[in-house]
Amino acid sequence: MAHQFTVPGRIVTGEGALEASLEVLRSFGTRAFVVCDPLMVSLGNLEVLTGALASVGISCEAFSEITGEPTDEMVARGVERARAWPCDMYIGLGGGSPIDAMKAIACMVALDADIDDQMGAEIACDRPPLVAIPTTAGTGSEVTRFTIISNTRDDVKMLLAGPSVMPDVAIVDPRFTLTAPADVTANAGVDALCHALEAATSRRMQPMSYTFSVSAIRRIFANLPACWRDGANVGAREQMAIAATEAGIAFSNASVTIVHGMSRPIGALFHVPHGLSNAMIVLECLRFVVDGAYPQFAAVARDAGVSRAEDDRAAALELLDALQGLLEELRIPTLREHGIDEAAFRAQIPKMAADAMASGSPSNTIKPLCAADLEAIYDRLISA
Amino acid sequence: MAHQFTVPGRIVTGEGALEASLEVLRSFGTRAFVVCDPLMVSLGNLEVLTGALASVGISCEAFSEITGEPTDEMVARGVERARAWPCDMYIGLGGGSPIDAMKAIACMVALDADIDDQMGAEIACDRPPLVAIPTTAGTGSEVTRFTIISNTRDDVKMLLAGPSVMPDVAIVDPRFTLTAPADVTANAGVDALCHALEAATSRRMQPMSYTFSVSAIRRIFANLPACWRDGANVGAREQMAIAATEAGIAFSNASVTIVHGMSRPIGALFHVPHGLSNAMIVLECLRFVVDGAYPQFAAVARDAGVSRAEDDRAAALELLDALQGLLEELRIPTLREHGIDEAAFRAQIPKMAADAMASGSPSNTIKPLCAADLEAIYDRLISA
Repeated sequence: MAHQFTVPGRIVTGEGALEASLEVLRSFGTRAFVVCDPLMVSLGNLEVLTGALASVGISCEAFSEITGEPTDEMVARGVERARAWPCDMYIGLGGGSPIDAMKAIACMVALDADIDDQMGAEIACDRPPLVAIPTTAGTGSEVTRFTIISNTRDDVKMLLAGPSVMPDVAIVDPRFTLTAPADVTANAGVDALCHALEAATSRRMQPMSYTFSVSAIRRIFANLPACWRDGANVGAREQMAIAATEAGIAFSNASVTIVHGMSRPIGALFHVPHGLSNAMIVLECLRFVVDGAYPQFAAVARDAGVSRAEDDRAAALELLDALQGLLEELRIPTLREHGIDEAAFRAQIPKMAADAMASGSPSNTIKPLCAADLEAIYDRLISA
Repeated sequence: MAHQFTVPGRIVTGEGALEASLEVLRSFGTRAFVVCDPLMVSLGNLEVLTGALASVGISCEAFSEITGEPTDEMVARGVERARAWPCDMYIGLGGGSPIDAMKAIACMVALDADIDDQMGAEIACDRPPLVAIPTTAGTGSEVTRFTIISNTRDDVKMLLAGPSVMPDVAIVDPRFTLTAPADVTANAGVDALCHALEAATSRRMQPMSYTFSVSAIRRIFANLPACWRDGANVGAREQMAIAATEAGIAFSNASVTIVHGMSRPIGALFHVPHGLSNAMIVLECLRFVVDGAYPQFAAVARDAGVSRAEDDRAAALELLDALQGLLEELRIPTLREHGIDEAAFRAQIPKMAADAMASGSPSNTIKPLCAADLEAIYDRLISA
């Protein structure tokens, strides 16, 4: 069976990655349209970027209005601004939201289309190069062929995919992650771990995505606690930044499964940040599905250096034990500890299970799953 | 420290990879200039390719005159042919030689330059997409930013590098490797192992190149003997094809070291095929340098699942023991067993050591090396 593996052709990592990328950016031209959020402005990160670009003669137009997970309205405003300032490259600076928004703006300018009509389409267009500079070690958006934009008209999250959604250059400079507070660090890091674990145990896993999953898992177990304890640990931050990028490459080429599938409805209905929502449910989800895929979980456990057990079941369970230990160390709360109302949650379980199944992600899990299985897991999660 | 990591944006692997790539190739246009060797014609591989391309409306011009390691003269003839038949994409089909030649032809047509003037230049030009289809699991040329072309005027091997030398699409279909005889399989496979081991223990190693080194080493130890015993084992062939590609990505981003450095002069003076020359010397080379880099070799040994030893020296030596076992299983000969004349070889040792040092590769080895060290290793090799 053949597998398509796609990735940005250039990934620049490590301290000083921004400066090391300037020559390539300059080869794209002299005008950059930068998409970010107000935090990047107040933290000074936008100024660092525009200063570096100015040093090689690249002028910028900054659109800093991505004030949360990106919506069709934000994208429409960005498209208007970008049309008025034709550019040679688009740059997304921030967490997943500004990068996702940058991808959508660039493609909608090129396609001259309404984003609400693009759900399910394979986006391919002739557009200037896309450059992604992540500032959290989590989403992996800098290396994926996806963007998620909320359709405010119909109140759904649209998943847009295609070759033109993939950035051309990812600049993974740990300097930009140093300001992330401990809880953001933990949630983003566990989000990346979910990407890697789900991709490695997905029906759509492929050999080269697996390579990245294993490497990311190894780096995350070794470095996430250190980043969480001491945000200024640049070495650990660099390893986590690379791990998140590797995990992004993994799931962009192999898909996510049960965890992301079940997490999105919680996020949508109870306004829980994406990374935290994954972190609160990942253990219960994987405990439910591990018995359908002991060999796959065992291979991950051994290849990532988590287990030496010969027996598949034992090795697979050691991986889940290690995951539990990490979540405890990072003090990830339960749903109730996070403040979700038990009765309100229980009332939404059938809808959440149906929405999760409809997203298609749970069906990528190796163990066959139905809505009733998901309902049982949601029930356990709110009982904990 | 920042690291540049470059790779083809699309890598298609597995059985049927050619068919799975046709839609992307068709998006490039309708005219393909194919570079291959006479063996690809006689084995029928060229016909398989042109038939598949014709099925989506792509017509071909085949240049099948790469009759050995590529020379400036072959490239010049190819450039002439390509100029007479303007194309929308270049395709290289074969081992490293046709793929290297394809890269050089495409760049020289675009640059309108003489290749003998390009040594040491960073090749950047505006050219049609490059597509590489390897038929041996070894060189990794399908994913590297290098091409090696012999300058027949000055009798030197020119290393040309740059972003335009990197293919845009690599099609890694194990079907094309099934016809490789056992000795070619062994030599190419050990060549790939050298790429992975040297890249992982290079001064220019970077985190993401290391990810690929470890994965390639794991796959090669697990699958090369099976391919060598039974060339029709498609599963093992697929794993080796992916391993060679991963090892290519590793060394393209981290460089090779002592083994390739010392191997090239043997190849040039005694006309030993590149893969075999590496295979005959790799163990002695790494035995000489391992004591300068126990922690690095130990990390590779543990991460690739070869050793569980806590002690770095013990783990590093286990890796070399595993390498020795593999070479013995594949019946890799010594230099003398291969028929190299001892006296003739000894007479060339000073020149080979000097040429190896001049290539720069030995200096990427973590243990500091001088010409006298290389002379001592050449001496041991011919004494064995």
